[in-house]
Amino acid sequence: MRIALDAMGTDLAPSAEVAGAIGALDELEPDIEIVLVGDRDLIEAALAEHPSVPAGRLHVHHAPDRVTAADSPATVLRRKPDSSIVVGLQMVKAGEADAFISAGSTGAVMATSLFTLRRIPGVDRPAIGTLLPTAGSSCLMLDAGANVDCKPQHLVQFARLGQIVAQDLMGRDRPRVALLNIGEEPEKGDELTLETHKLLSRAKGLNFVGNLEGRDIIRGVCDVVVCDGFVGNVLLKFYESVAQFIIGLMRKELQQAGESMDFEELFRVLDYEEYGGAPLLGVGGVCIICHGESSPFAIRNAVAVAARAVRSDMVRHITREISTADPPEEVP
Amino acid sequence: MRIALDAMGTDLAPSAEVAGAIGALDELEPDIEIVLVGDRDLIEAALAEHPSVPAGRLHVHHAPDRVTAADSPATVLRRKPDSSIVVGLQMVKAGEADAFISAGSTGAVMATSLFTLRRIPGVDRPAIGTLLPTAGSSCLMLDAGANVDCKPQHLVQFARLGQIVAQDLMGRDRPRVALLNIGEEPEKGDELTLETHKLLSRAKGLNFVGNLEGRDIIRGVCDVVVCDGFVGNVLLKFYESVAQFIIGLMRKELQQAGESMDFEELFRVLDYEEYGGAPLLGVGGVCIICHGESSPFAIRNAVAVAARAVRSDMVRHITREISTADPPEEVP
Repeated sequence: MRIALDAMGTDLAPSAEVAGAIGALDELEPDIEIVLVGDRDLIEAALAEHPSVPAGRLHVHHAPDRVTAADSPATVLRRKPDSSIVVGLQMVKAGEADAFISAGSTGAVMATSLFTLRRIPGVDRPAIGTLLPTAGSSCLMLDAGANVDCKPQHLVQFARLGQIVAQDLMGRDRPRVALLNIGEEPEKGDELTLETHKLLSRAKGLNFVGNLEGRDIIRGVCDVVVCDGFVGNVLLKFYESVAQFIIGLMRKELQQAGESMDFEELFRVLDYEEYGGAPLLGVGGVCIICHGESSPFAIRNAVAVAARAVRSDMVRHITREISTADPPEEVP
Repeated sequence: MRIALDAMGTDLAPSAEVAGAIGALDELEPDIEIVLVGDRDLIEAALAEHPSVPAGRLHVHHAPDRVTAADSPATVLRRKPDSSIVVGLQMVKAGEADAFISAGSTGAVMATSLFTLRRIPGVDRPAIGTLLPTAGSSCLMLDAGANVDCKPQHLVQFARLGQIVAQDLMGRDRPRVALLNIGEEPEKGDELTLETHKLLSRAKGLNFVGNLEGRDIIRGVCDVVVCDGFVGNVLLKFYESVAQFIIGLMRKELQQAGESMDFEELFRVLDYEEYGGAPLLGVGGVCIICHGESSPFAIRNAVAVAARAVRSDMVRHITREISTADPPEEVP
C-alpha cells in the first residue's frame, strides 16, 4: 500500500510530516509505503534530521508549487498544477497511490479532490467526517465543514456515509446514528432538522437512534452524529479550542504548584490529535484532511486512518451502499 | 426593588430557590426584596430548613398550579393560570414586581412572557442572551435558543440587544460585537451569515468587529457574539456539558491520587453557574431564565443579574435603542 502524504501542509512543514511519516512506518504494518509529496530540497533537509529512515518504504515526489492562503481553492488545480495537493491527488487518481493525506488548505484539498477524484455516483455532497473524543467511545460527526447550507436529503446521505465509516474505520457493528438537534423530541428543531428527522426515521438500512442534544455529545452515546457543515464546523473548532485551552491551563497550574499529575483519562478525552485526520467522504478515492497545526503524532495517526480506509475498501463500500440506498430518499 | 422568583422551577424545587433567595438577600443590596412564587406549603417547608430568614425582605405568593413537561408552552397561560410562571410574570406586568426569574420550562417561560409582557415595539424576535465564560472576560451569546430559524435582520437585532446587555449588565464600554461564523473572512459563511455580515458591516451605532470562529470563542476577544438560536443552543449545551464533564473527571482523578489541588482559574472559566441566568431580551419586562439544574449559587447569581437589569433600566434602554435604530435594517 502506498500513501501519498502532502509534505507541505502543516504550519511546521515539512518537518512535522517527515517525522510523522517515519513514526507511522516504524509502528504500522510493513506493507505500508509513504510518498512524501512536496519540495524535494526541503523534504530532504528534514529527512537529514533523522538518524535513520526506513529503507525502501519512504519516497519523495517533487512538487515545487506552493499553495498559499491567497490561492482561491477552486483555482489550485489550474494555477498550481505542480503543487503537493494537485500532484498527490493525481497520484491517487492514476492508481500510483492508494490514499492522499494533507494538512494544507482544507478548501483547496476539497476542491481539488472533487475535480480529480470526482464524486462517487449518487453522492450529492461529499462531506468531512471528523472524530470527536467523548467520555465513551469516539463519535463521528459529519459534516464538519464541507457543506454549509444543507437540505434534509444531504443529511440523510451524511448518515449513510457516516455509517460506513463507523463500520470500516471505527469497527462499530450496527452503528447508532443520531441527528444533532436542540431537543430530544422529534418535534424539536429548525426547518432542516425537523424534516431530516422524518426522513431518517423512515430511511431503510440505518440504525437511527433519534435526536442528540449538544449536551449529550460528550457522553458518547452514539457512533455517528449528523449536522450541517456550519454547525459541525463551529462545534468542532470550539471543542478543539476548549480542549487545548483546558490542557494548557491545567499544565500551567500543575507546574506552578510543582505537581506532575497525569490526568490520563482527561487528556485522552481532550486529545483530538489521537484521531489524526478526517476523511473526505463521497469522493472516488481515500483523501484524509488534517489540521494545519498537526503534530508528528497527528500525522502518524492520519496515516493509520488512511491505511484502515484502504484496507477496508471503504470507497467501494460507499459506492455500493449509495447505489443501493432508496434513490433520492423520498424527499419533497 | 421586588423580584418575583419562581420557586417551582429547578429539579430541586423549591429548596434550591429558597436557599438561593436567602443567599441573595444576605449578599446583595438591602433594598432588594424577593417574592417566592409557588406552592406555599412546599415553600414554607423549605424555609423552615433555614435557621434565619431576612425579616421583611422575603415573601411568599401562593401559586398552586404545576407546569409539567406534558404542558405545551403555548397553552400554559390559559391552562395553568395559577402556576408560578404565569403568576410571576403577571406580577411584573402589573408592576407588583420589577423582574421575574424562573428555572422552569424555558419554552413555557418564553411563551408566557410573550403573551403577558409582550414584545417591545420594533423587536421582531425576542432572544435569549447567555454569558459564556472565556479565558478573557465573559462573552454574551445570543440567541441561545429562542429562535431556531432566523433571517439576517434578526441577527442584526440580536446584535443591538446584545450591545445593550453588554453595557447595562456587563459594564462594557463600546462592546465589541462579532458574528459567529466558519471563517474570519467576510466571504466565508452560509447564506445567513454572509448576508448578516453585510448588514452588520453597514449598521450604524454598532461596534461590529467581524466574524468569530468557533475556536476563538474561548479566547474572550469580543463582548457579544450573535448566531441563530439553533447554533447557539447546540453550542451552549455542548459547552456546559464539556465543562461539567471535565470538572467531574478532574475531581475524580484528584481524589484517586489523594490530591486536593484547586484549579482556581480553570474552575472559574468552566463554571457557568457564576452567571446564574440568561435574560430574555426584547420583551416588555425583566425576565431571567435559569437552568433546571440550577444550584442555590446559580439562583443567587440570577437574582444579581435581575437586579442589575432593573437598576440599569435595561428594558427602557432597549425600547429607546430599537426605536431609533435604522428601521427595518435595510434588508431585502
